[in-house]
Amino acid sequence: MNTQNTRSTDTPHHIVIVGGGFAGIQCAKSLRKAGVRITLIDQRNHHLFQPLLYQVATTILPTSEIAWPLRRLFKTRRDVTTLLSQVTGIEPATRHVVLSDGVRISYDSLVLATGARHSYFGNDGWEPFAPGLKTIEDATRIRQRILLAFERAETAKDADQRRAYLTFAIIGAGPTGVELAGIIAELAQRVLPLEFRHIDTRKARILLVEAGPKVLPAFADNLSKYAQKALEKLGVEIMLGSPVTQCSADGIELGGADIDCKTIIWAAGVQASPASEWIGAERDRAGRAVVADNLSAPNYPEIFLVGDTASVVDRAGNPVPGIAPAAKQMGAYAAKVIRARLADKPAPAPFRYRHAGNLATIGRRAAVADFGRLRIKGPLAWWVWGIAHIYFLIGTRSRFAVAWSWLWSFFTGHNSARLITGAQMPD
Amino acid sequence: MNTQNTRSTDTPHHIVIVGGGFAGIQCAKSLRKAGVRITLIDQRNHHLFQPLLYQVATTILPTSEIAWPLRRLFKTRRDVTTLLSQVTGIEPATRHVVLSDGVRISYDSLVLATGARHSYFGNDGWEPFAPGLKTIEDATRIRQRILLAFERAETAKDADQRRAYLTFAIIGAGPTGVELAGIIAELAQRVLPLEFRHIDTRKARILLVEAGPKVLPAFADNLSKYAQKALEKLGVEIMLGSPVTQCSADGIELGGADIDCKTIIWAAGVQASPASEWIGAERDRAGRAVVADNLSAPNYPEIFLVGDTASVVDRAGNPVPGIAPAAKQMGAYAAKVIRARLADKPAPAPFRYRHAGNLATIGRRAAVADFGRLRIKGPLAWWVWGIAHIYFLIGTRSRFAVAWSWLWSFFTGHNSARLITGAQMPD
Repeated sequence: MNTQNTRSTDTPHHIVIVGGGFAGIQCAKSLRKAGVRITLIDQRNHHLFQPLLYQVATTILPTSEIAWPLRRLFKTRRDVTTLLSQVTGIEPATRHVVLSDGVRISYDSLVLATGARHSYFGNDGWEPFAPGLKTIEDATRIRQRILLAFERAETAKDADQRRAYLTFAIIGAGPTGVELAGIIAELAQRVLPLEFRHIDTRKARILLVEAGPKVLPAFADNLSKYAQKALEKLGVEIMLGSPVTQCSADGIELGGADIDCKTIIWAAGVQASPASEWIGAERDRAGRAVVADNLSAPNYPEIFLVGDTASVVDRAGNPVPGIAPAAKQMGAYAAKVIRARLADKPAPAPFRYRHAGNLATIGRRAAVADFGRLRIKGPLAWWVWGIAHIYFLIGTRSRFAVAWSWLWSFFTGHNSARLITGAQMPD
Repeated sequence: MNTQNTRSTDTPHHIVIVGGGFAGIQCAKSLRKAGVRITLIDQRNHHLFQPLLYQVATTILPTSEIAWPLRRLFKTRRDVTTLLSQVTGIEPATRHVVLSDGVRISYDSLVLATGARHSYFGNDGWEPFAPGLKTIEDATRIRQRILLAFERAETAKDADQRRAYLTFAIIGAGPTGVELAGIIAELAQRVLPLEFRHIDTRKARILLVEAGPKVLPAFADNLSKYAQKALEKLGVEIMLGSPVTQCSADGIELGGADIDCKTIIWAAGVQASPASEWIGAERDRAGRAVVADNLSAPNYPEIFLVGDTASVVDRAGNPVPGIAPAAKQMGAYAAKVIRARLADKPAPAPFRYRHAGNLATIGRRAAVADFGRLRIKGPLAWWVWGIAHIYFLIGTRSRFAVAWSWLWSFFTGHNSARLITGAQMPD
């Protein structure tokens, strides 16, 4: 079965990795000094630290502090070639990746780490009104909407319009939704009040709308309850058991009730990239490819699917969550399988996800951390969260810059990245 | 003549300032505690430190370090109302400013500080191929073009195409052109070389094209010569006496000769905003309004034109340069005239521009500074330039952040803001 052994001895084994997210770059890193040739393909020129993207959307961090050029990450790795391009399909029979410009690239092993986008559960028409948060552009677009909503409220013609502009609905109360709601509430309560002359930004309504029965569904009940109380203290209105039935330019509909609001942010669901379609793999409900226990595609042992695009369950049978540590573990595992094959060593034991814990912040002073047996909340959890995230940022400069932005924001109450760009004019 | 004295005593004198650049915000600052009501209108939500914009375009600084929300600048000034809106005209007879949404705002005094855009000397069709540098969006667009050019060179299909992508033409050798050329040369020579596998970025051609006989026309000859030599040492090719006769998607034409290049940046000329048209004022060649010696519009003593939109000459009869210190002096002067009128004091002496000096950097280690009798060049001038610019940045945080970005770039050779955003795909 080890198809890679047919390689000639003078051409190194060629591994194509599609996607420069957590899974893809971890795989490339774990293949260091493996004697292989790697081509890393991404349609963006940067790796993005998605766990902090919500802070760009809410004016805490500037974009460049959480994104790094892929080329720089692998500058000293002469075995890695970075390619800025878009993959449009795979030809597994002849082992080729097809790019949007028609170029075909052959591979010996292929690692698909193409991630996920947000999903509207079949209501894709909602996207223009309720943007989700996955890319740098998504974040600057949401930042622009939030800041423009306050601007338009300031010049609103009547009280109804003003109220609609000062109502913000966040759909989905997972970590991203909770984090967005907390920061937007702080923006309205603490950062902006003195800056407007015709509105009181403290009167803004921040709605956190969740179809399920609690906030932070993946956390222990007492942490969920704590998070709910902490959000309510910041002024967030939490609406549980409230599936959204409509999103439009004017607001949202919950069951039969309409709520007028001009800013809606989607943090409710994700849909895997089409990687599974490229190779004709079976898919789960979220579009993730069903993979073998070594993360390879069932019919193509030389193709691996890692990160948010793979459907994997943990020992208890629960789906592995779509978080950075899970993606990294899968990327490293795929590298390990490839290394073993190249060295003619026995295949590693099947992939097993090790859950480190769940973390979420509530505003700039509190957080919840659920490490299974150890559960912490409040300011201490915030520091744990902050230190963990700074540790995992790439590069000394980013660590320093993010720490500085946070400390500055913490002590002065000012946010540093409040630019409205891309829009010449509010409408 | 003092029309403002007709105001009623219980409504404070209302001053509308259009434009939140150096002239506009200086005017608002100089009117502190003047007992007036100020409305500051800008179509953007931020004040931009334009002298450092070229560093955003060339990946040295992230956008948020050189732009600040106007609202925050005047947060504690209860007499200042900030309005994010676009002015489309003036009705001087009835003293109203007209906004794009049809709203009319009345004023007692009006300060027009609407600045300038780049100008193609009648060849506006060149703009798509040769973008200029005036806004944050301009800077990120140029940054994207520069970075994508290297990406496309890496995957170019033949040597000619590769050469065109690795040729960068900067049109105009004033301070902006010189600064852009120096940093792009350093990017190609020192920052990027190790990151590409198929091209040698050090072979990139950086052309600095100037119609006149020397670089930095406003500087003393020995400083111009030094700048030219320093640029040539960085690998920049300087083409003097070379007016551009055509810009297209394929390159530039100089006289009869075509040069294939995929990246063209326009740093050659500026054109004032249409403020002069709004009030029917006479205009100079660059579209600037001819003003009275107190910076007021000839027919409307209550309207002032300040900054890049006003045509003013110094004592020697030379046009006042379009630089930040000049704009600030004019903004402060208009405030002084208004204050004197309100206090029924004698009008101040006519506006007189005090030239502090000219500064320009060449790459990250050298600069030229021309203070008239004191002329310095080399690394010392770079430190003078750096300290001056940090001093004039607004806010402790920005000063710290910019200083840190520069020191980091200086010592590590890495640039911090190398994101390609806004483009999903290179074409």
